[in-house]
Amino acid sequence: MTCDIYRKSLFEIPKGLIYLDGNSLGPLPRGAADRLQRTARDEWGQMLIGAWNSAGWMDQPAQLGDRIAPLIGAHPGTVMVGETLSIRIYQLLDAALRLRPDRKVILSDTGNFPSDLYVASGLITQLQTGHELTLAEPDALIAAITSEVAVVMLTDVDYRTSRRHEMDRITAAAHDAGALVVWDLAHSAGALPVDLAGCQTDFAAGCSYKYLNGGPGAPAFAYVAPGLAERITPALSGWLGHRAPFDFGLDYRPAAGAARLRIGTPPVLQMAALDAALDVFDGISMDAVFARSRTLSERFQSLIAQHCPQLVLASPAASEDRGSHLSYRHPQGYAIIQALIARGVVGDFRAPDILRFGITPLYLDEADIDQAVAVCAQVLEKRLWDDPTYLARQPVT
Amino acid sequence: MTCDIYRKSLFEIPKGLIYLDGNSLGPLPRGAADRLQRTARDEWGQMLIGAWNSAGWMDQPAQLGDRIAPLIGAHPGTVMVGETLSIRIYQLLDAALRLRPDRKVILSDTGNFPSDLYVASGLITQLQTGHELTLAEPDALIAAITSEVAVVMLTDVDYRTSRRHEMDRITAAAHDAGALVVWDLAHSAGALPVDLAGCQTDFAAGCSYKYLNGGPGAPAFAYVAPGLAERITPALSGWLGHRAPFDFGLDYRPAAGAARLRIGTPPVLQMAALDAALDVFDGISMDAVFARSRTLSERFQSLIAQHCPQLVLASPAASEDRGSHLSYRHPQGYAIIQALIARGVVGDFRAPDILRFGITPLYLDEADIDQAVAVCAQVLEKRLWDDPTYLARQPVT
Repeated sequence: MTCDIYRKSLFEIPKGLIYLDGNSLGPLPRGAADRLQRTARDEWGQMLIGAWNSAGWMDQPAQLGDRIAPLIGAHPGTVMVGETLSIRIYQLLDAALRLRPDRKVILSDTGNFPSDLYVASGLITQLQTGHELTLAEPDALIAAITSEVAVVMLTDVDYRTSRRHEMDRITAAAHDAGALVVWDLAHSAGALPVDLAGCQTDFAAGCSYKYLNGGPGAPAFAYVAPGLAERITPALSGWLGHRAPFDFGLDYRPAAGAARLRIGTPPVLQMAALDAALDVFDGISMDAVFARSRTLSERFQSLIAQHCPQLVLASPAASEDRGSHLSYRHPQGYAIIQALIARGVVGDFRAPDILRFGITPLYLDEADIDQAVAVCAQVLEKRLWDDPTYLARQPVT
Repeated sequence: MTCDIYRKSLFEIPKGLIYLDGNSLGPLPRGAADRLQRTARDEWGQMLIGAWNSAGWMDQPAQLGDRIAPLIGAHPGTVMVGETLSIRIYQLLDAALRLRPDRKVILSDTGNFPSDLYVASGLITQLQTGHELTLAEPDALIAAITSEVAVVMLTDVDYRTSRRHEMDRITAAAHDAGALVVWDLAHSAGALPVDLAGCQTDFAAGCSYKYLNGGPGAPAFAYVAPGLAERITPALSGWLGHRAPFDFGLDYRPAAGAARLRIGTPPVLQMAALDAALDVFDGISMDAVFARSRTLSERFQSLIAQHCPQLVLASPAASEDRGSHLSYRHPQGYAIIQALIARGVVGDFRAPDILRFGITPLYLDEADIDQAVAVCAQVLEKRLWDDPTYLARQPVT
């Protein structure tokens, strides 16, 4: 079946493969490979240094930001693309702390992506100013927002369980307590509607290689609320965040708005691939994408319950409470995922026992879901995972 | 003429163009465009998420580091590729300061690239620990290394004048005074011999889009001396610098060696282009490259003195005292560069009045030098620069 948002023909997906890992690395949009080649041969190759201006390379971070903005409920000019997500989390978290100098607590939850927590701990160690990182259980988060909290730093959709936070309620609660918020949208952007401006979010960041299909190592994006950008002095004050980088003055003067989040030379080739990948989202409403995702994930959930009772749901049972992937627990999760991959159904594994399946309606339909569950049922019934090839743990990504 | 290191056939350079801006953006190596296409179509497109292991993406930062290492006199395992140069300078500078907690001075010089100074000032503002940035004149640098200095942070080759520091003497003087050093190799790597290990340098970083021809926005590299890596706790402690990132533990445990400098997901496409670009350096000695660069730059210098006396040399007169570009001053420097570019001779301009010409012997020979000077002489003699098209300042890179 097809529907309005089904655009599988825009992707290169190996024949016969059911790709349930777009939550980790989106597949190749056909336009991205062509665009990469043009950027390399026609721009880098023919225009050389002149391409920074004449091919618009210098403006890519802002232009790509403006293309991502409507997908996450942000106004034009408030999103900047570049660097990696961990770097952006660092930069935004540091900016938030400086706006609340009298408060010492960074509040997060135990479901946050570990890199965000590492970055926060690292910043605390570096600053030596008596800050502390407090982790609440996801459900006890709002109750933990005290007047000591400088910033609430959370990932919207849990990378393991897919549980989704209520961005509006938490942001409002943080603001009521005088705290700021930093939202990580790694598993949200391109997957479901996000309303950063409507929620009055202060800061947010995300990556573009998952649901946005920007390619391996695609750059991150960062959001700063209108008006707030002028009040921050970002760490990592590199020259391209300078108001006039090509004056080469010895003193740093931050650029206006979100542009001050820029640091160094943008990764032009990755940006070109991302730009082409974003073409896939032209004319698509994120409400429609998420509605289809829910339809498909409910189907997956129901079929798994019926045919694969060995798998224990690790995600919220209601599709409205989760992101666009479904997770299950099984003690042999690793081997099961390997057995599935060997049979053309690509999910992934997250330690210690989580099987993840990304439901991405841009290139998946009911037939894919049905087939994936059928293969999974066979793997479980016949214990096909019980094979030394699958049981031997390799480094996973 | 050709010689051992002349490899113009390995590059895509538009016919008739004399490219004297490889010090800003190296030209496209033919292999890089092909490699990008393979990485996109065969790896991302066909192997999808599995390519992180099976195509070796996860190991790229270390493998590319090991390819760059011999070009800068570093031992295997001490160089890590990724992020941008400004981020690496930040990370290494912060690490150095933490190793000298009782000292409060970052010493640099007025010829350093402004972004390095912005990053240092930004770090000082962020830390609020009473550090200060002291700038000496380049020639007065060693005398300024007092017992207050925690770290000497310098760019080996001045981006404007091409003046080259004596890395061995300055590093020794810094160590004698109990300070550490951070060297920026932006205009050195791929241009001239650097002996990081021989100089006992503590930290270094550089970019790969200039003389290494890695492409626009190619990732930076960072060096940390053997044994020193284990003593630092890098800021920007992202998950890929973790000892076991895929355990997803909540606490950060740094990886062994230079791998702890890793932060987030590496830019796979840019890394692929860089990998192909480094093939050009296979079997080349940096001594031979620099020897040819000196021969060509002395020829350029002599011809300019003879035919373009309006240009005032802004670089050291002796080729051994400079890097691989030559700079001149002229009040109409901007317009002259535009007139040259319009006639197929690509140099660049740096405010307020510097004309830069990169001498890159991998794809330039005597005929190019002679032709470039002939065009320049014509532009100056006939005042061809005195044209509204050339005089109107555009943003430059």
